[in-house]
Amino acid sequence: MSRYLIYAEGQLGTPSAKTGHSVIRYSAPHVAAVLDSTHAGECVSDVIGFGGDIPIVGTIADGAEQGADALLVGIAVAGGGLPTGVRTAIRQAIECGLDIWNGLHTFVADDPTLGPLVREHGVTVHDVRRPPDDLPVGAGRVRALTQTIVLAVGTDANIGKMTVMLQLRNALRNSGTRATFAPTGQTGIFIEGWGLCVDAVVADFIAGASEAVTIKAAEDSDIVLVEGQGSILHPGYSGVSLGLLHGSLPHALIVCHQPPRKTFRHNAWLEIPPLNDVIALHEAMAAPLRPASTIGVSLNTSDLSDDEARRIIDQVAQQTGLPTTDPVRYDATPLVDAVLAFDAKRRAF
Amino acid sequence: MSRYLIYAEGQLGTPSAKTGHSVIRYSAPHVAAVLDSTHAGECVSDVIGFGGDIPIVGTIADGAEQGADALLVGIAVAGGGLPTGVRTAIRQAIECGLDIWNGLHTFVADDPTLGPLVREHGVTVHDVRRPPDDLPVGAGRVRALTQTIVLAVGTDANIGKMTVMLQLRNALRNSGTRATFAPTGQTGIFIEGWGLCVDAVVADFIAGASEAVTIKAAEDSDIVLVEGQGSILHPGYSGVSLGLLHGSLPHALIVCHQPPRKTFRHNAWLEIPPLNDVIALHEAMAAPLRPASTIGVSLNTSDLSDDEARRIIDQVAQQTGLPTTDPVRYDATPLVDAVLAFDAKRRAF
Repeated sequence: MSRYLIYAEGQLGTPSAKTGHSVIRYSAPHVAAVLDSTHAGECVSDVIGFGGDIPIVGTIADGAEQGADALLVGIAVAGGGLPTGVRTAIRQAIECGLDIWNGLHTFVADDPTLGPLVREHGVTVHDVRRPPDDLPVGAGRVRALTQTIVLAVGTDANIGKMTVMLQLRNALRNSGTRATFAPTGQTGIFIEGWGLCVDAVVADFIAGASEAVTIKAAEDSDIVLVEGQGSILHPGYSGVSLGLLHGSLPHALIVCHQPPRKTFRHNAWLEIPPLNDVIALHEAMAAPLRPASTIGVSLNTSDLSDDEARRIIDQVAQQTGLPTTDPVRYDATPLVDAVLAFDAKRRAF
Repeated sequence: MSRYLIYAEGQLGTPSAKTGHSVIRYSAPHVAAVLDSTHAGECVSDVIGFGGDIPIVGTIADGAEQGADALLVGIAVAGGGLPTGVRTAIRQAIECGLDIWNGLHTFVADDPTLGPLVREHGVTVHDVRRPPDDLPVGAGRVRALTQTIVLAVGTDANIGKMTVMLQLRNALRNSGTRATFAPTGQTGIFIEGWGLCVDAVVADFIAGASEAVTIKAAEDSDIVLVEGQGSILHPGYSGVSLGLLHGSLPHALIVCHQPPRKTFRHNAWLEIPPLNDVIALHEAMAAPLRPASTIGVSLNTSDLSDDEARRIIDQVAQQTGLPTTDPVRYDATPLVDAVLAFDAKRRAF
């Protein structure tokens, strides 16, 4: 796997560097350095509170000196295209012989100036939103697996579906369980070094892509934790979420919710239904293909006080009858135990 | 709109010319001729039983002489690429100054030999599976329309969802109602001369594409009949179907079913659930965004005897409590009446 130099120029510690932050949090051993000249010389943890002593550098060359062999574009960009700063950094990285990991909608390999430079320097470009051209149409192939498959679903997009699965992966591995994470979005792909953006494929192939990523993640694993996307009720992304559900055919679901959120992201007209209704709809839509049990609730309480958060966690646990926690703020243990108990019960049959 | 020469060489009257047959059935005034040298000189109705006196010709030039100004590739092709016969016909058509309508996965405009020829001859190529590059992410924009929106849904793919809406469009227009058909797949697009293949867009844009096509179809219309795609329980295509449901936000649903079919197409492992369950699931998945009422059942009884068909239509009407018919074999009236009654009731509020 690559050793990343994460591009976050002028943005480390801000919301637009969220992708970079997640890679630092969940793939720190693969991060050689972060590029942000406004913090050059500091450590990552000085700026964002985690990430230990990963150095922050001011130039591509300094990043390479820290052992990086790839530049990772770790920021979000509004609209299409490559902003000048990103473009310059990619050019310099290619000239330094670094590979490129890019999750933006604009593909580096297709760029009229960067593309030829890539080929000239013989570096590898991972435009992770580019779909492979050999995807199958989904046809329930996951049923051939013996592994336990768990999918994160949610009441909305951008609510903690990737995060809970990564927390679970870490905790399960620490407990000696062979658990793998199946990355279905760009940040997850950066963290694992492989995967498939299921929202970037041609619509006919959502389930097929979800199958492919689930089957690959199942190699050398007993429990596959599939990264969720969107929500089956999101006005823009529901198709992706349902294709992922029907492609990955999970045995178990972990449902994610952000308690203070009342309406869907970018869709203030649409109220988020009660959590129990969302759970029932997921199970109803999964059942005809393969029954899925909801085994836990992951809450994102980052906007709440400690008191409020603990109160809401208790309340949701009571309402749903399910193990409930904020696995980042508090402890993933209730969900880890739920996964292990479900897996043991399933294998006992 | 174009006057088509439908390419069906050696295949008119066979299942692989299904697309061409549908265009003849529902867009006959726009069909100048059919190309199939094995039937040259005959009329279309001689071979397929409908299509009246549309002439069958043996060459592109003869088709142009019949008034065609566009070649329509009206056959299905297994796999990618353009078969030699199709390629030759397209080349000759371009050289004759005909536009091209192509629904295959391979795009004519991108072909290394045909592309330059297109530009040289100044003809227009409609590669109808190529998505536009300015699609929005779905966000419930259809709510701004005042028109009544009806969507065809189904227990499976390839079950009559396009057909019932075209039968309804014709019958409603004959009754003096301003009804339009919103084409979401290649055959529908050929029939109407515009539309959007919602299964060919990048997954993030399924609902956005469905919104766009619904909004456009609503111009100069009182009732919009949205062509359905796939099934929300199909292992391969469910994402497309749900994105279409959440993008078009129908007020009313017509559910399509083929009674003898027990398992999903290309998925013999998966039983089709009872029709009432499929209806309930659609309504449950629509409700949080906008409630949709199922107002009728369209059955495809083409595999059944007349006795069996009539018995099953009665049985399904009783089971579902809904107006039920085979609108091709018998009479679309029960569904036409259901649409008009629903529309009147909705406007009365």
